[in-house]
Amino acid sequence: MSDFAFKLYEYNVWANQQIFNRLKELPKEIYHQEIQSVFPSISHVLSHVYLSDLGWIEVFSGKTLSDALALAEQLKEQTEAKEIEEMEDLFLRLSERYILFLQQKEQLNKPLQIQNPSSGIMKTTVSELLPHVVNHGTYHRGNITAMLRQAGYASAPTDYGLYLFMTKTEKA
Amino acid sequence: MSDFAFKLYEYNVWANQQIFNRLKELPKEIYHQEIQSVFPSISHVLSHVYLSDLGWIEVFSGKTLSDALALAEQLKEQTEAKEIEEMEDLFLRLSERYILFLQQKEQLNKPLQIQNPSSGIMKTTVSELLPHVVNHGTYHRGNITAMLRQAGYASAPTDYGLYLFMTKTEKA
Repeated sequence: MSDFAFKLYEYNVWANQQIFNRLKELPKEIYHQEIQSVFPSISHVLSHVYLSDLGWIEVFSGKTLSDALALAEQLKEQTEAKEIEEMEDLFLRLSERYILFLQQKEQLNKPLQIQNPSSGIMKTTVSELLPHVVNHGTYHRGNITAMLRQAGYASAPTDYGLYLFMTKTEKA
Repeated sequence: MSDFAFKLYEYNVWANQQIFNRLKELPKEIYHQEIQSVFPSISHVLSHVYLSDLGWIEVFSGKTLSDALALAEQLKEQTEAKEIEEMEDLFLRLSERYILFLQQKEQLNKPLQIQNPSSGIMKTTVSELLPHVVNHGTYHRGNITAMLRQAGYASAPTDYGLYLFMTKTEKA
Protein backbone atom coordinates (compact mmCIF):
# COMPACT_ATOMS: atom_id res chain seq x y z
CA MET A 1 0.00 0.00 0.00
CA SER A 2 2.75 2.50 0.86
CA ASP A 3 4.41 2.27 -2.59
CA PHE A 4 1.04 2.97 -4.13
CA ALA A 5 0.44 5.96 -1.81
CA PHE A 6 3.88 7.33 -2.77
CA LYS A 7 3.13 6.92 -6.48
CA LEU A 8 -0.25 8.65 -6.02
CA TYR A 9 1.56 11.57 -4.36
CA GLU A 10 3.96 11.81 -7.32
CA TYR A 11 0.90 12.02 -9.58
CA ASN A 12 -0.39 14.87 -7.38
CA VAL A 13 2.86 16.82 -7.92
CA TRP A 14 2.57 16.29 -11.71
CA ALA A 15 -1.10 17.37 -11.73
CA ASN A 16 -0.38 20.55 -9.74
CA GLN A 17 2.42 21.44 -12.14
CA GLN A 18 0.03 20.99 -15.09
CA ILE A 19 -2.26 23.59 -13.47
CA PHE A 20 0.62 26.01 -12.78
CA ASN A 21 1.94 25.65 -16.35
CA ARG A 22 -1.54 26.46 -17.69
CA LEU A 23 -2.11 29.41 -15.31
CA LYS A 24 1.24 30.94 -16.31
CA GLU A 25 0.07 30.93 -19.96
CA LEU A 26 -2.95 33.06 -19.08
CA PRO A 27 -3.21 36.82 -18.51
CA LYS A 28 -1.64 37.56 -15.09
CA GLU A 29 -4.82 39.05 -13.58
CA ILE A 30 -6.74 35.78 -13.92
CA TYR A 31 -4.95 34.36 -10.86
CA HIS A 32 -6.50 36.90 -8.45
CA GLN A 33 -9.64 37.64 -10.50
CA GLU A 34 -12.88 37.52 -8.47
CA ILE A 35 -15.11 34.66 -9.64
CA GLN A 36 -18.42 33.61 -8.04
CA SER A 37 -17.47 30.05 -7.13
CA VAL A 38 -16.31 27.76 -4.30
CA PHE A 39 -13.64 30.31 -3.40
CA PRO A 40 -13.45 34.02 -4.30
CA SER A 41 -10.54 33.44 -6.75
CA ILE A 42 -8.15 30.80 -8.07
CA SER A 43 -5.44 32.14 -5.74
CA HIS A 44 -7.74 31.38 -2.80
CA VAL A 45 -8.20 27.79 -4.02
CA LEU A 46 -4.47 27.16 -4.41
CA SER A 47 -3.74 28.78 -1.03
CA HIS A 48 -6.29 26.48 0.58
CA VAL A 49 -4.71 23.43 -1.07
CA TYR A 50 -1.19 24.54 -0.12
CA LEU A 51 -2.11 25.22 3.52
CA SER A 52 -3.99 21.90 3.80
CA ASP A 53 -1.03 19.99 2.39
CA LEU A 54 1.31 21.88 4.73
CA GLY A 55 -0.97 21.08 7.66
CA TRP A 56 -0.98 17.37 6.88
CA ILE A 57 2.79 17.03 6.69
CA GLU A 58 3.03 18.86 10.00
CA VAL A 59 0.60 16.27 11.43
CA PHE A 60 2.57 13.44 9.82
CA SER A 61 5.68 14.92 11.50
CA GLY A 62 4.04 14.95 14.96
CA LYS A 63 1.99 18.19 15.27
CA THR A 64 -1.61 17.91 16.50
CA LEU A 65 -4.39 18.59 13.96
CA SER A 66 -5.49 21.70 15.87
CA ASP A 67 -1.92 23.11 15.91
CA ALA A 68 -1.67 22.43 12.17
CA LEU A 69 -5.01 24.17 11.56
CA ALA A 70 -3.80 27.14 13.65
CA LEU A 71 -0.63 27.36 11.55
CA ALA A 72 -2.67 27.34 8.35
CA GLU A 73 -4.92 30.10 9.68
CA GLN A 74 -1.87 32.20 10.60
CA LEU A 75 -0.40 31.87 7.07
CA LYS A 76 -3.70 32.27 5.19
CA GLU A 77 -3.69 35.96 4.33
CA GLN A 78 -0.05 36.14 3.22
CA THR A 79 -0.43 32.98 1.14
CA GLU A 80 -3.53 34.23 -0.66
CA ALA A 81 -1.69 37.46 -1.57
CA LYS A 82 1.17 35.70 -3.34
CA GLU A 83 1.64 35.79 -7.10
CA ILE A 84 1.46 32.64 -9.22
CA GLU A 85 5.24 32.19 -9.51
CA GLU A 86 5.72 32.47 -5.75
CA MET A 87 2.89 29.95 -5.23
CA GLU A 88 4.47 27.55 -7.72
CA ASP A 89 7.70 27.79 -5.75
CA LEU A 90 5.91 27.14 -2.43
CA PHE A 91 4.24 24.05 -3.91
CA LEU A 92 7.57 22.83 -5.30
CA ARG A 93 9.40 23.17 -1.97
CA LEU A 94 6.53 21.54 -0.09
CA SER A 95 6.53 18.60 -2.52
CA GLU A 96 10.29 18.20 -1.99
CA ARG A 97 9.64 18.08 1.77
CA TYR A 98 6.91 15.46 1.24
CA ILE A 99 9.13 13.32 -0.99
CA LEU A 100 12.01 13.42 1.51
CA PHE A 101 9.57 12.47 4.27
CA LEU A 102 7.92 9.67 2.27
CA GLN A 103 11.23 8.16 1.26
CA GLN A 104 11.72 7.24 4.91
CA LYS A 105 9.71 4.01 4.52
CA GLU A 106 9.23 3.63 8.29
CA GLN A 107 7.24 6.88 8.27
CA LEU A 108 4.60 5.51 5.95
CA ASN A 109 3.19 2.90 8.28
CA LYS A 110 3.93 4.68 11.57
CA PRO A 111 0.71 4.59 13.67
CA LEU A 112 -0.95 8.01 13.96
CA GLN A 113 -3.74 9.08 16.35
CA ILE A 114 -5.54 12.12 15.02
CA GLN A 115 -7.78 14.11 17.36
CA ASN A 116 -10.43 15.74 15.20
CA PRO A 117 -11.99 18.69 17.08
CA SER A 118 -15.46 17.61 15.91
CA SER A 119 -15.40 13.83 15.70
CA GLY A 120 -13.07 12.13 18.14
CA ILE A 121 -9.85 10.19 17.63
CA MET A 122 -8.93 8.38 14.43
CA LYS A 123 -6.25 5.68 14.44
CA THR A 124 -4.54 5.69 11.06
CA THR A 125 -1.18 5.80 9.23
CA VAL A 126 0.52 8.23 6.84
CA SER A 127 -0.01 5.85 3.91
CA GLU A 128 -3.72 5.65 4.69
CA LEU A 129 -4.07 9.45 4.85
CA LEU A 130 -1.84 10.35 1.93
CA PRO A 131 -4.59 9.47 -0.61
CA HIS A 132 -6.71 12.12 1.14
CA VAL A 133 -4.03 14.74 0.37
CA VAL A 134 -4.11 13.68 -3.30
CA ASN A 135 -7.90 13.34 -3.50
CA HIS A 136 -8.28 16.77 -1.89
CA GLY A 137 -5.90 18.21 -4.52
CA THR A 138 -7.87 16.57 -7.33
CA TYR A 139 -11.16 17.93 -5.99
CA HIS A 140 -9.83 21.49 -5.97
CA ARG A 141 -8.20 21.08 -9.38
CA GLY A 142 -11.76 20.26 -10.48
CA ASN A 143 -12.88 23.55 -8.94
CA ILE A 144 -10.09 25.44 -10.73
CA THR A 145 -10.99 23.98 -14.11
CA ALA A 146 -14.62 25.05 -13.68
CA MET A 147 -13.53 28.51 -12.53
CA LEU A 148 -11.23 28.91 -15.55
CA ARG A 149 -14.06 27.91 -17.91
CA GLN A 150 -16.34 30.38 -16.10
CA ALA A 151 -13.72 33.07 -16.86
CA GLY A 152 -13.59 31.89 -20.48
CA TYR A 153 -10.42 29.80 -20.50
CA ALA A 154 -9.67 26.09 -20.95
CA SER A 155 -7.77 24.33 -18.17
CA ALA A 156 -5.10 21.60 -18.45
CA PRO A 157 -5.53 17.79 -18.44
CA THR A 158 -4.73 16.30 -15.02
CA ASP A 159 -6.34 12.82 -15.13
CA TYR A 160 -4.60 10.03 -13.20
CA GLY A 161 -5.38 7.73 -16.14
CA LEU A 162 -3.46 10.05 -18.48
CA TYR A 163 -0.54 10.16 -16.01
CA LEU A 164 -0.51 6.34 -15.88
CA PHE A 165 -0.50 6.10 -19.68
CA MET A 166 2.32 8.64 -19.93
CA THR A 167 4.50 7.02 -17.28
CA LYS A 168 3.73 3.36 -18.04
CA THR A 169 3.54 3.41 -21.81
CA GLU A 170 7.04 4.94 -22.05
CA LYS A 171 8.39 2.09 -19.86
CA ALA A 172 6.47 -0.62 -21.86
CA MET B 1 -2.99 -2.73 -2.82
CA SER B 2 -6.25 -4.34 -4.01
CA ASP B 3 -7.99 -3.97 -0.62
CA PHE B 4 -7.07 -0.30 -0.66
CA ALA B 5 -8.38 0.11 -4.23
CA PHE B 6 -11.66 -1.55 -3.17
CA LYS B 7 -11.97 0.76 -0.14
CA LEU B 8 -11.27 3.79 -2.33
CA TYR B 9 -14.08 2.67 -4.65
CA GLU B 10 -16.47 2.40 -1.68
CA TYR B 11 -15.55 5.99 -0.81
CA ASN B 12 -16.40 6.97 -4.39
CA VAL B 13 -19.90 5.47 -4.02
CA TRP B 14 -20.40 7.40 -0.76
CA ALA B 15 -19.17 10.68 -2.30
CA ASN B 16 -21.48 10.33 -5.33
CA GLN B 17 -24.43 9.70 -3.02
CA GLN B 18 -23.55 12.87 -1.05
CA ILE B 19 -23.83 14.82 -4.32
CA PHE B 20 -27.14 13.16 -5.29
CA ASN B 21 -28.60 13.80 -1.84
CA ARG B 22 -27.64 17.49 -2.14
CA LEU B 23 -28.93 17.87 -5.72
CA LYS B 24 -32.30 16.38 -4.72
CA GLU B 25 -32.67 19.11 -2.05
CA LEU B 26 -32.34 21.83 -4.70
CA PRO B 27 -34.96 23.18 -7.14
CA LYS B 28 -35.46 20.51 -9.85
CA GLU B 29 -34.41 22.79 -12.74
CA ILE B 30 -30.86 23.20 -11.37
CA TYR B 31 -29.91 19.73 -12.65
CA HIS B 32 -30.32 20.68 -16.34
CA GLN B 33 -29.71 24.42 -15.92
CA GLU B 34 -27.20 25.87 -18.43
CA ILE B 35 -24.06 27.08 -16.68
CA GLN B 36 -20.92 28.45 -18.36
CA SER B 37 -18.44 25.90 -17.05
CA VAL B 38 -16.52 22.70 -17.88
CA PHE B 39 -19.76 21.13 -19.15
CA PRO B 40 -22.99 22.87 -20.23
CA SER B 41 -24.86 21.62 -17.12
CA ILE B 42 -24.55 19.42 -14.05
CA SER B 43 -26.48 16.67 -15.85
CA HIS B 44 -23.76 16.67 -18.51
CA VAL B 45 -21.04 16.28 -15.85
CA LEU B 46 -22.78 13.34 -14.15
CA SER B 47 -23.50 11.71 -17.51
CA HIS B 48 -19.83 11.99 -18.40
CA VAL B 49 -18.80 10.42 -15.07
CA TYR B 50 -21.39 7.65 -15.41
CA LEU B 51 -20.38 6.78 -19.00
CA SER B 52 -16.66 6.84 -18.07
CA ASP B 53 -17.25 4.51 -15.13
CA LEU B 54 -19.38 2.25 -17.34
CA GLY B 55 -16.64 2.25 -19.98
CA TRP B 56 -13.98 1.22 -17.46
CA ILE B 57 -15.90 -1.74 -16.07
CA GLU B 58 -16.52 -2.89 -19.64
CA VAL B 59 -12.73 -2.70 -20.20
CA PHE B 60 -12.10 -4.50 -16.90
CA SER B 61 -14.53 -7.19 -18.13
CA GLY B 62 -12.66 -7.66 -21.43
CA LYS B 63 -13.93 -5.00 -23.89
CA THR B 64 -11.34 -2.91 -25.77
CA LEU B 65 -11.01 0.76 -24.84
CA SER B 66 -12.27 1.83 -28.26
CA ASP B 67 -15.36 -0.41 -27.99
CA ALA B 68 -16.03 1.02 -24.53
CA LEU B 69 -15.65 4.58 -25.85
CA ALA B 70 -18.06 3.72 -28.70
CA LEU B 71 -20.62 2.39 -26.20
CA ALA B 72 -20.34 5.58 -24.16
CA GLU B 73 -20.83 7.70 -27.27
CA GLN B 74 -23.92 5.69 -28.19
CA LEU B 75 -25.51 6.20 -24.74
CA LYS B 76 -24.48 9.85 -24.36
CA GLU B 77 -27.58 11.69 -25.52
CA GLN B 78 -30.09 9.50 -23.66
CA THR B 79 -28.01 9.64 -20.48
CA GLU B 80 -27.75 13.43 -20.52
CA ALA B 81 -31.54 13.70 -20.89
CA LYS B 82 -32.29 11.70 -17.72
CA GLU B 83 -33.69 13.26 -14.58
CA ILE B 84 -31.74 13.27 -11.31
CA GLU B 85 -33.61 10.31 -9.77
CA GLU B 86 -33.03 8.15 -12.86
CA MET B 87 -29.34 9.14 -12.81
CA GLU B 88 -29.07 8.24 -9.13
CA ASP B 89 -30.54 4.83 -9.94
CA LEU B 90 -28.10 4.31 -12.83
CA PHE B 91 -25.16 5.15 -10.56
CA LEU B 92 -26.48 2.81 -7.85
CA ARG B 93 -26.87 -0.15 -10.22
CA LEU B 94 -23.43 0.51 -11.75
CA SER B 95 -21.83 0.60 -8.29
CA GLU B 96 -23.50 -2.75 -7.46
CA ARG B 97 -21.98 -4.17 -10.67
CA TYR B 98 -18.56 -2.79 -9.68
CA ILE B 99 -18.76 -4.20 -6.14
CA LEU B 100 -19.78 -7.65 -7.42
CA PHE B 101 -16.88 -7.52 -9.90
CA LEU B 102 -14.33 -6.30 -7.33
CA GLN B 103 -15.32 -8.94 -4.79
CA GLN B 104 -13.86 -11.51 -7.17
CA LYS B 105 -10.33 -10.98 -5.79
CA GLU B 106 -8.71 -12.66 -8.82
CA GLN B 107 -10.10 -9.87 -11.01
CA LEU B 108 -8.18 -7.15 -9.16
CA ASN B 109 -4.71 -8.25 -10.16
CA LYS B 110 -5.56 -9.79 -13.52
CA PRO B 111 -3.09 -8.38 -16.11
CA LEU B 112 -4.74 -5.95 -18.55
CA GLN B 113 -3.31 -4.58 -21.81
CA ILE B 114 -5.03 -1.35 -22.78
CA GLN B 115 -4.64 -0.03 -26.32
CA ASN B 116 -5.02 3.72 -26.12
CA PRO B 117 -5.87 5.12 -29.57
CA SER B 118 -3.42 8.00 -29.03
CA SER B 119 -0.57 6.61 -26.95
CA GLY B 120 0.12 2.91 -27.44
CA ILE B 121 -0.36 -0.04 -25.14
CA MET B 122 -0.38 0.13 -21.35
CA LYS B 123 0.19 -2.98 -19.26
CA THR B 124 -1.73 -2.59 -16.01
CA THR B 125 -4.23 -4.23 -13.62
CA VAL B 126 -7.73 -3.42 -12.41
CA SER B 127 -6.43 -2.44 -8.96
CA GLU B 128 -3.96 -0.03 -10.56
CA LEU B 129 -6.66 1.60 -12.70
CA LEU B 130 -9.44 1.69 -10.13
CA PRO B 131 -7.93 4.75 -8.39
CA HIS B 132 -8.28 6.53 -11.75
CA VAL B 133 -12.04 5.85 -11.69
CA VAL B 134 -12.23 7.36 -8.18
CA ASN B 135 -9.88 10.27 -8.91
CA HIS B 136 -11.87 11.06 -12.06
CA GLY B 137 -15.06 11.10 -9.98
CA THR B 138 -13.47 13.41 -7.40
CA TYR B 139 -12.30 15.80 -10.12
CA HIS B 140 -15.80 16.12 -11.55
CA ARG B 141 -17.37 16.41 -8.10
CA GLY B 142 -15.03 19.40 -7.79
CA ASN B 143 -16.50 20.76 -11.02
CA ILE B 144 -20.05 20.23 -9.72
CA THR B 145 -19.36 22.05 -6.47
CA ALA B 146 -18.01 25.06 -8.38
CA MET B 147 -21.00 24.97 -10.76
CA LEU B 148 -23.45 24.86 -7.85
CA ARG B 149 -21.74 27.86 -6.23
CA GLN B 150 -21.85 29.66 -9.57
CA ALA B 151 -25.63 29.03 -9.57
CA GLY B 152 -25.81 30.32 -5.99
CA TYR B 153 -26.00 27.06 -4.02
CA ALA B 154 -23.68 25.29 -1.58
CA SER B 155 -22.61 21.74 -2.42
CA ALA B 156 -22.08 18.78 -0.07
CA PRO B 157 -18.88 17.64 1.72
CA THR B 158 -17.22 14.73 -0.10
CA ASP B 159 -13.65 14.71 1.30
CA TYR B 160 -11.91 11.32 1.61
CA GLY B 161 -10.53 12.52 4.95
CA LEU B 162 -14.07 13.10 6.23
CA TYR B 163 -15.10 9.64 4.98
CA LEU B 164 -12.12 8.10 6.80
CA PHE B 165 -13.00 9.91 10.03
CA MET B 166 -16.64 8.83 9.75
CA THR B 167 -15.89 5.19 9.01
CA LYS B 168 -12.81 4.74 11.25
CA THR B 169 -13.79 6.82 14.28
CA GLU B 170 -17.03 4.83 14.71
CA LYS B 171 -14.98 1.59 14.79
CA ALA B 172 -12.32 3.03 17.19
